[in-house]
Amino acid sequence: MCDARHQHMRHAVQLSRTKMDEGCGGPFGAVIVRDGKVIAEGWNNVTSSNDPTAHAEVSAIRAACEILGTFDLSGCEIYTSCEPCPMCLAAIYWARIDHIYYANGREDAAAIGFDDQFLYDEVAKPVSARSLPCDHIELPEAREVFQAWAEKEDKIPY
Amino acid sequence: MCDARHQHMRHAVQLSRTKMDEGCGGPFGAVIVRDGKVIAEGWNNVTSSNDPTAHAEVSAIRAACEILGTFDLSGCEIYTSCEPCPMCLAAIYWARIDHIYYANGREDAAAIGFDDQFLYDEVAKPVSARSLPCDHIELPEAREVFQAWAEKEDKIPY
Repeated sequence: MCDARHQHMRHAVQLSRTKMDEGCGGPFGAVIVRDGKVIAEGWNNVTSSNDPTAHAEVSAIRAACEILGTFDLSGCEIYTSCEPCPMCLAAIYWARIDHIYYANGREDAAAIGFDDQFLYDEVAKPVSARSLPCDHIELPEAREVFQAWAEKEDKIPY
Repeated sequence: MCDARHQHMRHAVQLSRTKMDEGCGGPFGAVIVRDGKVIAEGWNNVTSSNDPTAHAEVSAIRAACEILGTFDLSGCEIYTSCEPCPMCLAAIYWARIDHIYYANGREDAAAIGFDDQFLYDEVAKPVSARSLPCDHIELPEAREVFQAWAEKEDKIPY
């Protein structure tokens, strides 16, 4: 099988190899496709850019948004060399991307030392059951800001 | 109660108000604290910077990492005006932050039109049950890159 989807995925995987070899970060690559064409690339550059959020998918989303001049990637697909971690998955939802294609799975990532499966488990737990302490601080001003957003007439929804 | 934690949270909430009023994006602010001092601020700037990943927590993490010159925020705490969405929560884990403090909850965010609760539900589902289509494309090269990472001697783990 050698269709366009495989071609895009090969592109993403090639990125994961090249950028890993160049010392950018972990072995992950992604491309964003619109109307059958790659419009942006991304790769993991956590360690080279000192940005723990610079995963391949997040980087590809940021690049595509910059190129298109929008925060809304409706009509786009993402091809990623590995199943997105929860951070990247939620970023894909926020970006309104239409479709995810992935090659390696989260269990493959876990096998080479990445926390993806652990994070899926943690995110699904109630706040109090997680390994990372998380405390609520009640503050009336915080609610007032939300109320002000609800009433704000010139807001841009996203 | 008016301790240091409340002071940091007021700082985060004040940011959410100021930056919303300035038209940066949604009503969310966050600060990163180390050794009792605020070392970085973040606020939602999704719509003003065309970056769907530019939530308050992600922005604060990026700022703190840039200031400290590291991708590892162990020893830091984050104060956020609203419970982190799954993207931000996973980003906080990847950044190795020690403690989360939040004011408004995900249900408060849902009440003013944000997807946080929906995303928590989606992330916890099996891939095939999600509303966003997600397809696996098997590619042997992808596994080879992971194998190469496992064997890479000069890699920087994160």
